[in-house]
Amino acid sequence: MSWLDEVPWGKDGLIAVVTQDFSSQRVLTVAWMNREALEKTVQTSQATYWSRSRQRLWRKGEESGNVQQVREVRIDCDSDAILLKVEQTGGIACHTGRASCFYRKLENGNWIEVDPVLKDPSLIYRKK
Amino acid sequence: MSWLDEVPWGKDGLIAVVTQDFSSQRVLTVAWMNREALEKTVQTSQATYWSRSRQRLWRKGEESGNVQQVREVRIDCDSDAILLKVEQTGGIACHTGRASCFYRKLENGNWIEVDPVLKDPSLIYRKK
Repeated sequence: MSWLDEVPWGKDGLIAVVTQDFSSQRVLTVAWMNREALEKTVQTSQATYWSRSRQRLWRKGEESGNVQQVREVRIDCDSDAILLKVEQTGGIACHTGRASCFYRKLENGNWIEVDPVLKDPSLIYRKK
Repeated sequence: MSWLDEVPWGKDGLIAVVTQDFSSQRVLTVAWMNREALEKTVQTSQATYWSRSRQRLWRKGEESGNVQQVREVRIDCDSDAILLKVEQTGGIACHTGRASCFYRKLENGNWIEVDPVLKDPSLIYRKK
């Protein structure tokens, strides 16, 4: 499909993806997609990424149930990054049980945890 | 400095950086930093990136004047992405003269420009 062809997939075939909460506007995650992941994300309206560590497609929430319903897909001026606006099921995007993966803030030369754990990860991933 | 050492700089020495407008919460850009860029950004409270195309440090706004005053620096759970919250001087982050680089939205299989040009780029970069 032509809109997929407009992404210069590069040598590793991946594009950086910023995912933002549609309601709170918090930045939730930075992840990666290959062509298949982006196509699947748009077809299903559920965010699917490429897991670089596991080297496979990964539908966000496939284990935890915390899926991301896609409300908007944007691309940047040089077509090397995607912005997804999503409704985050469960209000938890991070595997640590927090709303966002960006829960550490630089304060006086230290990365400080500033956001609460909303749910114990052992309860989120109990099916493992 | 230890907070810099906590970033796993990887083989290319770069980390992905999402920059978000502190007031509007819009995601403005995705760019890259090396260790020196991140250090400089924190020291000066002005966003400095690593330009992959030009292979040099690049203080955002050095030509256009549209500098980014850094209000907050966050890092994600696996320390491979940075989130900057900034005040965007001039309200323009994109070299096309738009507020954000993410001005194209996927609609019915097409990337559609949905945000206005706020200033003619030839006026932004007239010093060139």
